[in-house]
Amino acid sequence: MQRKVLITDCADAPGLITKITGVCYAHGLNIVKNSEFVDNAQGRFFMRTEVEGCEDEPGLLADVGKVLPVQRHLKLVTKSTKRIVVMVTKEAHCLGDLLMKAYYGALDVEISAIIGNYDILKPLAEKFSIPFYHVSHEGVTRQEHEQTMLDIIAQYQPDYLVLAKYMRVLTPEFVEQHPNRIINIHHSFLPAFVGASPYRQAWERGVKIIGATAHFVNNCLDEGPIIKQDVIPVDHSFSADDLAQCGRDVEKSVLSKALQLVLQESVIVYGNKTVVF
Amino acid sequence: MQRKVLITDCADAPGLITKITGVCYAHGLNIVKNSEFVDNAQGRFFMRTEVEGCEDEPGLLADVGKVLPVQRHLKLVTKSTKRIVVMVTKEAHCLGDLLMKAYYGALDVEISAIIGNYDILKPLAEKFSIPFYHVSHEGVTRQEHEQTMLDIIAQYQPDYLVLAKYMRVLTPEFVEQHPNRIINIHHSFLPAFVGASPYRQAWERGVKIIGATAHFVNNCLDEGPIIKQDVIPVDHSFSADDLAQCGRDVEKSVLSKALQLVLQESVIVYGNKTVVF
Amino acid sequence: MQRKVLITDCADAPGLITKITGVCYAHGLNIVKNSEFVDNAQGRFFMRTEVEGCEDEPGLLADVGKVLPVQRHLKLVTKSTKRIVVMVTKEAHCLGDLLMKAYYGALDVEISAIIGNYDILKPLAEKFSIPFYHVSHEGVTRQEHEQTMLDIIAQYQPDYLVLAKYMRVLTPEFVEQHPNRIINIHHSFLPAFVGASPYRQAWERGVKIIGATAHFVNNCLDEGPIIKQDVIPVDHSFSADDLAQCGRDVEKSVLSKALQLVLQESVIVYGNKTVVF
Amino acid sequence: MQRKVLITDCADAPGLITKITGVCYAHGLNIVKNSEFVDNAQGRFFMRTEVEGCEDEPGLLADVGKVLPVQRHLKLVTKSTKRIVVMVTKEAHCLGDLLMKAYYGALDVEISAIIGNYDILKPLAEKFSIPFYHVSHEGVTRQEHEQTMLDIIAQYQPDYLVLAKYMRVLTPEFVEQHPNRIINIHHSFLPAFVGASPYRQAWERGVKIIGATAHFVNNCLDEGPIIKQDVIPVDHSFSADDLAQCGRDVEKSVLSKALQLVLQESVIVYGNKTVVF
Repeated sequence: MQRKVLITDCADAPGLITKITGVCYAHGLNIVKNSEFVDNAQGRFFMRTEVEGCEDEPGLLADVGKVLPVQRHLKLVTKSTKRIVVMVTKEAHCLGDLLMKAYYGALDVEISAIIGNYDILKPLAEKFSIPFYHVSHEGVTRQEHEQTMLDIIAQYQPDYLVLAKYMRVLTPEFVEQHPNRIINIHHSFLPAFVGASPYRQAWERGVKIIGATAHFVNNCLDEGPIIKQDVIPVDHSFSADDLAQCGRDVEKSVLSKALQLVLQESVIVYGNKTVVF
Repeated sequence: MQRKVLITDCADAPGLITKITGVCYAHGLNIVKNSEFVDNAQGRFFMRTEVEGCEDEPGLLADVGKVLPVQRHLKLVTKSTKRIVVMVTKEAHCLGDLLMKAYYGALDVEISAIIGNYDILKPLAEKFSIPFYHVSHEGVTRQEHEQTMLDIIAQYQPDYLVLAKYMRVLTPEFVEQHPNRIINIHHSFLPAFVGASPYRQAWERGVKIIGATAHFVNNCLDEGPIIKQDVIPVDHSFSADDLAQCGRDVEKSVLSKALQLVLQESVIVYGNKTVVF
Repeated sequence: MQRKVLITDCADAPGLITKITGVCYAHGLNIVKNSEFVDNAQGRFFMRTEVEGCEDEPGLLADVGKVLPVQRHLKLVTKSTKRIVVMVTKEAHCLGDLLMKAYYGALDVEISAIIGNYDILKPLAEKFSIPFYHVSHEGVTRQEHEQTMLDIIAQYQPDYLVLAKYMRVLTPEFVEQHPNRIINIHHSFLPAFVGASPYRQAWERGVKIIGATAHFVNNCLDEGPIIKQDVIPVDHSFSADDLAQCGRDVEKSVLSKALQLVLQESVIVYGNKTVVF
Repeated sequence: MQRKVLITDCADAPGLITKITGVCYAHGLNIVKNSEFVDNAQGRFFMRTEVEGCEDEPGLLADVGKVLPVQRHLKLVTKSTKRIVVMVTKEAHCLGDLLMKAYYGALDVEISAIIGNYDILKPLAEKFSIPFYHVSHEGVTRQEHEQTMLDIIAQYQPDYLVLAKYMRVLTPEFVEQHPNRIINIHHSFLPAFVGASPYRQAWERGVKIIGATAHFVNNCLDEGPIIKQDVIPVDHSFSADDLAQCGRDVEKSVLSKALQLVLQESVIVYGNKTVVF
């Protein structure tokens, strides 16, 4: 049976759980899974309610709306295969993992298209019969470059954009076209080693652990809401290159896990943070 | 404000969340935290509702009882400092960690007494002014030995018994006096290496990871419901003794974490498993 | 410059490090990396010496041989791209990861051929232009089935056979054709849950961690020398299917890491254990 | 038999392993464990050689010195119980773990004295009969405060100073009295969240992992050579206080592990990094 996810994000108030689930019950829905969180510091209530049997979406939303405070975000999403466009530069590991997991069904996603500012990964895209667009950043203005990509993206109407080691900084103008819908993998355990050459920085600092961070992109570089992080132990014997090579395994794994969380509607963004149910 | 935890464990049925939280709301309670889980395979519903403002316990229980299926376990527990009796043999690391964490407040627990079948750990108990009972198993029958311990335990009416590396097998008669209230740390990643000398077994098998398991004790040795497990990586250079020494850090950490989960009423036992909210 | 790895495995004796490295020095070799281990319990010495500049292999081996005890294994291997044949059944995740990592160079390996007892993974093999042999086990004796596979394998003279979720038990006759050269991924944290349906077993036991084990295959099912293990935390909300799905990520990651260790000549088998430098 | 550790740190050169182990062999030593590392980027060679049977320390050092390049650090240390002085402020968890592990023998160390700028932890020190010095920083200059502590420390001639959540910044004058002999636990995964209130910073950033870093103290705050790091996963439901509480378990565990590595002479400092054998 088709499942839908009701996402509530509003000011905290007494009885919200019973009121919202009460509306679901009145609509004859089966609640498959329910998760709540109250940020007491901010007096804010978050709930993710996964339901079966919803036949009247507008009615449900209207009735839930009646029991909530005026200021709220309310969303009802059908669980289904989402569409993404992936942006890449030269490195294959993150794209490769997404392609492979989509292929064997570990990620419920349709990769609609891949855009690369180099054409190195085109043969990989072709193995999986995914359209690959080579949009070089050379010889054009930043604005022209991004506009070409935005036009391609617009064709596919993706649910999310995934930056799978896309190594150029996007302008605020690009980012604000897809608010909280661009997922990036940062090759470091943020907020350590922001900016360029994080593995080099990590090596120079002599750290004993390296990590990767998947986050939504906002207008501050490396500063968007974090979705998922992971780390691996390293030691003195690792060169900066060894760190980078090891880091790739963490990067690809963190990016796919973050994407999976987003695809199953488990992530709510608020301010510069996420609630991950 | 005093917090209470309402634990519901019953057959699954439509509308349980809204009904139970509805009763809480009608009683004017503030739900601080709510967690649910449905075991679909068994059609069983579990909920942990942490509330503030409960002044009429019997009334609340009665009213919640009315909205539940007939077959159910319902429990309302006040969050407060629980009392434990710790049983030990010779090794200090688990007892030491419990004593220290209770001392500086990381575990909200009162260690009422310590019982050892050797007296080696008596000086450690005395440092923290906890009564230590040396109940040797030598020269007495198993039944006599356990009866002496049961008598001591009875004096203190503890909420839980903690086996902090108590190295003797308890009889079913002993165990059934404290159903799901005896917590053991097993020096292995169960169900690997059940029985004696698990580190020796692990060394002989050449494993690359060792672990520890905290579980409730039931009448099958090493078979009770698992509360918490953790592991650490090891390699070929570890002798069986090295494995044991490393294992101690995992053991003590797993045991305290499991105890903390139990103390905050986050663990529900069903069959031979646990739900850990 | 070409690198070679000298593997010494012999009875322990005084001065072995200085004697062996002395021979290397006399031959004008540059020691890039050296690792030793003595198993004191068995009085056995292991050393892995990675060298550059070796021009006289037979001379080096002869001279090292002179300084070692009579009973020894001595091996000098050139670091180069190794060839593997992969055996599969129906699941794509381990094969997919090997193909992808070989493609983008994270594994220095040539996948010479893939043999499946089903043809489900043929299209995946074809994406990467690797010969796929469908050798069904149906309608033939076990012996015939294995002989057909052995004949195919013989064509390719692979350095190693990798069982990437090959779900049939190999006979001792098959195994002894490739001693310590068959690498298997077992979907469990061995020695827990040996045998069939480990995720089902894990679910029934209510474990809080699941794992995977890569090991060499010997004639006892699930009993060969362990190369690498890893785990992930799980909880009560995971169904047996969820455990299997999560387990796949660990399986593929453990298998590739184990293979990488083997490919770079970091693994020495002795008895039923491994030394992993 | 008494064990000694020979630490070599010099410019890389051909044949160093064979030359150094050759000297050990000539002196009739049994090499229990040997580890080397070459930092190719800097052309620097590090070796740790653990030996038994050394009766002529000066002779051995002189003979090893003859085979090494002129520029080198060479050290021969007897493995024995080291002495430390611990400095604390108010928090008990790190001190508690050190006391307990020293008590039951998991750390081979003698805690000679404890100095606190508050007297809160005095009763804990007294439980283990360790002298506690309350040296308040109030009403005195920074210089006077540190001089009082230096005088106390001088009495005990400790091998290392351990800052077990000592929350004041030490002056360069203090630090340079004990070069690479002061070990600090920083309550963050350095270099993320340097400076004050790291858990608050981590909470505001919404990280999904927190960590701790043990490092030698040099004259740049939070910048000394890292010895050990570890992390734990956290989520949105953790308040800044929850993060701090969880962080304590990592802090204490990282600090004791770092200390253990230092005590067994496994750590070599070079520049702002460590080699940890």
